[in-house]
Amino acid sequence: MVESTIAGIGPLDEAAMAAARDLQARLTKPAGSLGTLEDLSVRLAGLAGTCPPPLPEPAAVAIFAGDHGVHAQGVTPWPQEVTAQMIGNFLAGGAVVNAFARQAGATVTVVDVGVATPLPLASPDPAGGPEAPRLVAAKVRPGTRDLTVTAALTRDEARAAVEIGIRVAEELIAAGAGILLTGDMGIANTTPSAALVAAFTGADPAETTGRGTGVDDETYRRKVDVVRRALHRHRPDPADPLGVLAAVGGLEHAALTGLILAAAAHRIPVLLDGVIAVSAALAAAAFAPEAVGAMVAGHRSAEPGATVALRHLGLDPLIDLGLRLGEGTGALLALPVVTGAARVLHEVATFDAAGVAEK
Amino acid sequence: MVESTIAGIGPLDEAAMAAARDLQARLTKPAGSLGTLEDLSVRLAGLAGTCPPPLPEPAAVAIFAGDHGVHAQGVTPWPQEVTAQMIGNFLAGGAVVNAFARQAGATVTVVDVGVATPLPLASPDPAGGPEAPRLVAAKVRPGTRDLTVTAALTRDEARAAVEIGIRVAEELIAAGAGILLTGDMGIANTTPSAALVAAFTGADPAETTGRGTGVDDETYRRKVDVVRRALHRHRPDPADPLGVLAAVGGLEHAALTGLILAAAAHRIPVLLDGVIAVSAALAAAAFAPEAVGAMVAGHRSAEPGATVALRHLGLDPLIDLGLRLGEGTGALLALPVVTGAARVLHEVATFDAAGVAEK
Repeated sequence: MVESTIAGIGPLDEAAMAAARDLQARLTKPAGSLGTLEDLSVRLAGLAGTCPPPLPEPAAVAIFAGDHGVHAQGVTPWPQEVTAQMIGNFLAGGAVVNAFARQAGATVTVVDVGVATPLPLASPDPAGGPEAPRLVAAKVRPGTRDLTVTAALTRDEARAAVEIGIRVAEELIAAGAGILLTGDMGIANTTPSAALVAAFTGADPAETTGRGTGVDDETYRRKVDVVRRALHRHRPDPADPLGVLAAVGGLEHAALTGLILAAAAHRIPVLLDGVIAVSAALAAAAFAPEAVGAMVAGHRSAEPGATVALRHLGLDPLIDLGLRLGEGTGALLALPVVTGAARVLHEVATFDAAGVAEK
Repeated sequence: MVESTIAGIGPLDEAAMAAARDLQARLTKPAGSLGTLEDLSVRLAGLAGTCPPPLPEPAAVAIFAGDHGVHAQGVTPWPQEVTAQMIGNFLAGGAVVNAFARQAGATVTVVDVGVATPLPLASPDPAGGPEAPRLVAAKVRPGTRDLTVTAALTRDEARAAVEIGIRVAEELIAAGAGILLTGDMGIANTTPSAALVAAFTGADPAETTGRGTGVDDETYRRKVDVVRRALHRHRPDPADPLGVLAAVGGLEHAALTGLILAAAAHRIPVLLDGVIAVSAALAAAAFAPEAVGAMVAGHRSAEPGATVALRHLGLDPLIDLGLRLGEGTGALLALPVVTGAARVLHEVATFDAAGVAEK
């Protein structure tokens, strides 16, 4: 399944991109005056293979949730139970991702791909209705192993998680989603993210490790040391992305990798959230370099590893507001920019049609 | 009218801001993890004088349109008629601002505060309905005078334009607007903007003048020289904002100044677009320093004067995508960020209520 998905990923359509560039030049605005949005609209056309590209709607956020054996190393002050408790909060509609999803008109799908503690009984979202958040039970195992001691996952477990991401993406696309947004939940998951970014980019753990939810100096030093020891122990090979995910990744990272690959294979844009998403995006790009064509970087997370990863992928984020929450919140804030970029090609009049003189 | 509006502008409400800070700390997310949005939510609470602050909706874009005598100096390759033609495009719903306003659910009001050439007969927006763009005829004079030769406006004309901005704002607020967005149209209007920014901040014209719609090197040098000569001729006093607007401003700049002052007096946020808006915001801040509390910087325009002005105002823009179109487009792209910031205080569960453990 992973192999057939990868085989379906191709380059951006040059003819559609040329048509989009040509159309941008004829619209009633000075050439280039929409900055980044013009390039983005061209890329969306290339991905869709048509100009104008479809508006990226409806939007679907997939939040992959997992726990991490490395939690035992004291890399975060938050108890592991918070992963499960936050799933309850997502399903009840009480988290920031829910507020932003309601605003953006996006659906929220929560996927338990490896939560370690029991999920709370769901209280339904008071907003209710067909748009209420939905839980997909797809636990590969109850959290990863401690990556300072052993590989976080076996290759089979990592592959199973990638396949869950592919399946969730395909289900959302089959249900009509025009864009997928990455979400994540997993106490301690900035630690494997830092390890993945270091493994795929070659950057030093001191550059890829951040303060996550806001750890103190002592915990931060311990976290950098944990990432350094994990890389030293496993020596992951960036040319073997499944091996990297298994050695130092997380179940949510592996599932996000699958989601991104499936979006690219179906030529649907995937809007990346923060450091967990972009570390998974590095894995997706290692599997299939052309998958980058489907990626839109939603925002620049405050986590330093995100910037290292985005630079490696050649992606410029749309929003830079110092967010470090995850859940998909940064991607949701960026969604109107992506929609706006596509909308311009649909709705704006040309100089000719509007009777406006050119310079 | 200007004086009574200024007299109505007061400081942000400290108690409401303290309540917003306290609420942010209890919401189910790591403290500080929403970055800039947390500060923005606190400021919105302080402006409204209540926590949570009302959601900033519905949104109303006011596009003030005017022409510029300095056009005769060859500061732009676009013919002056394009100002009037673009008003036709706005009313027909064909401009980028219309596309973004439809997406954001914002109304568009176009105000002719000083267009020099005849307006085209309006073709109605095919989207039609009560939300169709609306034209307000409020011409003070058909364009400003050439600021390299004489003052652009008399003090009475400048005051009349400021009052039009106040009246438009009060009408929109009376009709229910929860946030005002600044828009502008006026071929050559980045030239007076550069002069205003230099006059209010003391920066050199070479720092405040940009390439506007994309002028060539020769035109750019001429534009800097025009701004330098205008400042040398008029020596505007930044402590006399009406005098500055009259000497080197535009009718749309003066009207935007009034709009901003009225929003502040009514304690409604005003979301600033690009360099025309922020140069008017400098005038508003010179009239009433506490007006800055109502200002939200939508985006960082590619025009260098915008960055000089934002620094002087102490405002950080929400979006930075290299836009230089004007019309209100950058403000509209930033609107969901402002709404999201307020929404968090309304809809996100506290740790207590959601049964989520704290660190």
